[in-house]
Amino acid sequence: MPKFTHHIFICCNQRSAGSPRGCCDPAGSEALRNAFKAEVKKRGLDPLVRANVAGCLDQCECGPTVVIYPQEIWYGGVKLADVPRIIEETVLHGRVLEDLHIPDEKLNTKPRAATQPTAGVLFDSFQANC
Amino acid sequence: MPKFTHHIFICCNQRSAGSPRGCCDPAGSEALRNAFKAEVKKRGLDPLVRANVAGCLDQCECGPTVVIYPQEIWYGGVKLADVPRIIEETVLHGRVLEDLHIPDEKLNTKPRAATQPTAGVLFDSFQANC
Repeated sequence: MPKFTHHIFICCNQRSAGSPRGCCDPAGSEALRNAFKAEVKKRGLDPLVRANVAGCLDQCECGPTVVIYPQEIWYGGVKLADVPRIIEETVLHGRVLEDLHIPDEKLNTKPRAATQPTAGVLFDSFQANC
Repeated sequence: MPKFTHHIFICCNQRSAGSPRGCCDPAGSEALRNAFKAEVKKRGLDPLVRANVAGCLDQCECGPTVVIYPQEIWYGGVKLADVPRIIEETVLHGRVLEDLHIPDEKLNTKPRAATQPTAGVLFDSFQANC
């Protein structure tokens, strides 16, 4: 069979509480990944669309973080409620969701401020930080 | 900064002993990922080359499995000794290593035989199966 058309990696990394970089999955529940997996299955997109657990994607300041390959589309601040529209818009129609998109200049920049104490703060301030 | 030039995902999935699909990291040691990480660091390729832990990449029969994005290069039967030449040949020079390469027709085919009882057997018979 062909390669995956969309290989979606969802950061499920856990850091210790209070890490200055934040954490994409502080509860360690893999809830976001499970939501992607369920949506892919519901729409009959498997096996060529895959929602994969990933360790730290190194964009913690923008978390929860997701990357879709081979399209190289990075999303940050992703919430459970965003999953259906990511599948609908990006996977099925090739449209990048600008409100979630992490632009290149924000990738691979490591910690940008020392005042980002919790994942919750990072999550709430995604637009400002990423 | 730019996106990753090479985002290397190494399957670190564990299955229960005796799983018919085999397992890419039966010891749960993440040794292969750690070898990639060390090689990337040694050559000063970070942060734009990244060796990432991944959950099951769903090509278990060809494991231990690695995929490099956005190039979409799949490797199977990867041993620790292969790590330096993957970095040298594929990451630095863009050459696909044919002895490790999983061709498209072998991807996403799920179990192909009921007689593949252990990761060791799968590993040893990579060329025949994948």
